[in-house]
Amino acid sequence: MTNAMIQNGPVRILGLDPGLRRTGWGVIVSEGSRLRWIAHGVVAPDERAPFAERLLHLLEAVGEICASHGCEEAAIEEVFVNVNPASTLKLGHARAAVMLAPARCGLPVSEYSPNLIKKAVVGAGHADKGQIAFMVKRLMPASGEVKADAADALAVAITHAQLRKRTLLENLRGAA
Amino acid sequence: MTNAMIQNGPVRILGLDPGLRRTGWGVIVSEGSRLRWIAHGVVAPDERAPFAERLLHLLEAVGEICASHGCEEAAIEEVFVNVNPASTLKLGHARAAVMLAPARCGLPVSEYSPNLIKKAVVGAGHADKGQIAFMVKRLMPASGEVKADAADALAVAITHAQLRKRTLLENLRGAA
Repeated sequence: MTNAMIQNGPVRILGLDPGLRRTGWGVIVSEGSRLRWIAHGVVAPDERAPFAERLLHLLEAVGEICASHGCEEAAIEEVFVNVNPASTLKLGHARAAVMLAPARCGLPVSEYSPNLIKKAVVGAGHADKGQIAFMVKRLMPASGEVKADAADALAVAITHAQLRKRTLLENLRGAA
Repeated sequence: MTNAMIQNGPVRILGLDPGLRRTGWGVIVSEGSRLRWIAHGVVAPDERAPFAERLLHLLEAVGEICASHGCEEAAIEEVFVNVNPASTLKLGHARAAVMLAPARCGLPVSEYSPNLIKKAVVGAGHADKGQIAFMVKRLMPASGEVKADAADALAVAITHAQLRKRTLLENLRGAA
C-alpha cells in the first residue's frame, strides 16, 4: 500500500473488540467528517467446543462479516495484559483469530489502545463503557441501542475513521 | 468425530512448536508401534512486517505444509505463561495462528504440555532440548540432524502418536 492507495472517498471500516467468549464487531462508513452506521453484532463461539474450534468459529464468523459487508479497512482494540497470565494467553489466542479474518481478506488491520479509543470517542481517556455506548449512539443514531461489546467495536471503528491516514502511513513505514 | 472414526491404520501427524519469530513443524507417519519421519522445518515470518501480516504468514505457511503433506491429525505444544505478560500475549497470538491452520483444514488439533512431551519422548519430565533432539534422531534416524524448534515439533508429533486415541476420545467427550 502506498500513500496514493489510502482512499480519500468513502471507506467501509470494520471495528473489532476481541474476546474468546464474546467478540464485538461494528461496520461504519466514513466519508470526510461524516460517519454512517451500517451494522453491528457479537460473535459468541460455543464454550463447550474444543479450543481450536472456538478459535476457528471466531476466524470464520468475522471473515463472513468482513466479506458480506464489503469492508475495506479493519481496526482492533489493543488488549490489556490481564492480572491472570492464563487469561492473557487465552485473550491473545482469541485476538489473533479475530485479526486474521480481515488480514486474510487483504485488509490493513490497525490497532488502537483502549485509552486512545476513549479519547477519540468520548474525549477523555478514562471514560467508562456506559459513556462509550452513549457517545456511539449520539454519533450514529441509526445504530439504535447497542450493547457493550458491539459499542466498543463501533468505537474502535470511529477511532480508526478519525486517525486512519496517520495510522496507515505509520504501518506503511513500519513495513518498509 | 466418533470412536469409529479414529483411524487404526497409518496416520500422518503434523507436530507444531509455536512461536511468533520461529515456529517449528514436523510431519511423521504413525502405524501401530512404528514411526516414520516425513519432513520438518521452521516458519519464520519477516519481523519487520505489521503484526497482522506476521500472524497471516504463520497461518498460511502452516496451512500449506498441512495440505502438501496430506496431514490427518495435528498436535501442538501447550505454552508456558511467560514471566513477561506482553510476551505471553504475543505468544498467544502466534499459537492461535498456528493452531488455526490445521483446524481450517478440518484436522483435530490436540494439545500437550511440555512435561508430557518430554516424558513421552525422553522418559523424564525435565529433559533439556539437547536430549529431545537426540531422542528424536534416535527414534527416526532418517530425519538427519534436526535443530531445536523442529526437533520439538517432531517430539510433539511423536507424543501424539503415542497418546492419540486417548486424547482424541477426551476431545470428543469435551465437545459432546
